[in-house]
Amino acid sequence: MEARKNNTGRLHQAPNIHLTKLNKDVLYHIAMDTETHNFKEMFSDIKYVCFGGSRTRMEKFAHYIAKELKVTIPAGLTFENIAKGTDRYVMYKVGPVISVSHGMGIPSLSIIFHEIVKLLHYAECSDVIFIRLGTCGGLGLAPGSVVISECAVDGALNPYMELVSLGKVQQLPSTTDADLAQQLLSLTNSKEDGFETLIGKTMCTLDFYEGQARLDGAFCDYTEEDKMAFLNRIYKEGVRNIEMESLCFAAYCNRANIKGAVVCVTLLDRLEGDQIDTPHDVMEEWQTRPKKLVAKLMKSELGIE
Amino acid sequence: MEARKNNTGRLHQAPNIHLTKLNKDVLYHIAMDTETHNFKEMFSDIKYVCFGGSRTRMEKFAHYIAKELKVTIPAGLTFENIAKGTDRYVMYKVGPVISVSHGMGIPSLSIIFHEIVKLLHYAECSDVIFIRLGTCGGLGLAPGSVVISECAVDGALNPYMELVSLGKVQQLPSTTDADLAQQLLSLTNSKEDGFETLIGKTMCTLDFYEGQARLDGAFCDYTEEDKMAFLNRIYKEGVRNIEMESLCFAAYCNRANIKGAVVCVTLLDRLEGDQIDTPHDVMEEWQTRPKKLVAKLMKSELGIE
Repeated sequence: MEARKNNTGRLHQAPNIHLTKLNKDVLYHIAMDTETHNFKEMFSDIKYVCFGGSRTRMEKFAHYIAKELKVTIPAGLTFENIAKGTDRYVMYKVGPVISVSHGMGIPSLSIIFHEIVKLLHYAECSDVIFIRLGTCGGLGLAPGSVVISECAVDGALNPYMELVSLGKVQQLPSTTDADLAQQLLSLTNSKEDGFETLIGKTMCTLDFYEGQARLDGAFCDYTEEDKMAFLNRIYKEGVRNIEMESLCFAAYCNRANIKGAVVCVTLLDRLEGDQIDTPHDVMEEWQTRPKKLVAKLMKSELGIE
Repeated sequence: MEARKNNTGRLHQAPNIHLTKLNKDVLYHIAMDTETHNFKEMFSDIKYVCFGGSRTRMEKFAHYIAKELKVTIPAGLTFENIAKGTDRYVMYKVGPVISVSHGMGIPSLSIIFHEIVKLLHYAECSDVIFIRLGTCGGLGLAPGSVVISECAVDGALNPYMELVSLGKVQQLPSTTDADLAQQLLSLTNSKEDGFETLIGKTMCTLDFYEGQARLDGAFCDYTEEDKMAFLNRIYKEGVRNIEMESLCFAAYCNRANIKGAVVCVTLLDRLEGDQIDTPHDVMEEWQTRPKKLVAKLMKSELGIE
């Protein structure tokens, strides 16, 4: 397999000097540690980390991307869930790709992001690309459309993530890598694909119901008019989809100096409704769209036909 | 099985008038809906909902509490994961108890909380108690101690959860039910139990590493002195443990007029370190402590010897 074009040899050093003082580092939520596992031996060839909320989806992605990248497995073997010592996340390694679940919401994504960056640091990886493959609500788009995030904004449209540490608030900018977003878009063709792929702003909320202006949660103290006014306002501001992890994903990629992209398929048009009630098999097909795009990116970069 | 003492007949109405306009309500993240499932037939006897982060722990809890409450299962049957149509959460029903996982962090807890409150609403349940059984970091406590939350505070010590909805911030008070906390405490005896159980303030953060003043994340821009000054300050303010869900759990129990308790076992003393590296079997035993206490509560209320 060829090396990826545009390599800079840039190592992923976890920007935390305290790590050098640890005799052993326990990556608790993936049940691994630097004493039991030789990260360099296991992971030094990693070039992509693909994140997604659902465990099952990321297991399926591992098998899918193996086929696409022609990663062969000797007879009698299969992919192991490397994080099997815990039930917090699942993690698979497929050649140069890690496929890992992140659960739902920023805190859950944040934990696995920290531990993956440390893993890559101990493995002395360079030039790794991070991609979140997700599902989301769309705005003014046919369900099944794919949105590549131009930047993430919070539930009040701020283009940064607020991190509370030692009781103080820091603002971490949440733009994504513009080149990588364009590179992904250039691999699509709405006519041939049969669905639209576009670059847009992504709103990232801490709550699925009220945070996303839904009327169908257990609690709701606003009217349908309030909801529509809000959704139309954020549409005018360029927001094309709403999900729950991109803000932290983009902000932490920036902090770690990692090229990152967020590629999500819309499961419904929030200007039309709140409930997700599309037949299972249709949604299954929609959820293959981000992974097909990411496979195209990897194959073009790695020179695989 | 006797009815619980102090029943008020109070129904759990989801305080959202918009729900009455839905022909069908899809509880998407547990893969159930009001058309396919008869919630009243399935769940009208529910008196307790027990939440916990880990899927495996909540499956084990279902089997444990069945034994404690003498809930028998006919030969050839076992407990079904009621949410098996999705991999987002697991959910079991054991007599009057629901055991459900909530994943990690406020957003993940928030989603399942909304859907459980709607489920109880459609089932026309009354006087249900919610309990979160969790793990946490302790402050100035021997690892393995159990903390019952007197209230939850955020990462800046505020006693409320900030909910961003329609771009505006609401503050939702996050005290817990004082009577229920005392009732739980009265069932403990540190001498006989062999470990301490206490009532204290719980800090709830959006991040496991920097949010909790750890030095061992991928990122860290403060010193060990800064960290210790912060932890000592929150200890002086009455904080005895730190976790990632109690703020939303307490705030939403208040909103839904549900009696709720948060019972967490400490896996380490944060005044002594950051890493969780206790042998697996020891941590397994510690994690049985909250569930034993909750079983005592249920047995005393339900009149089971």
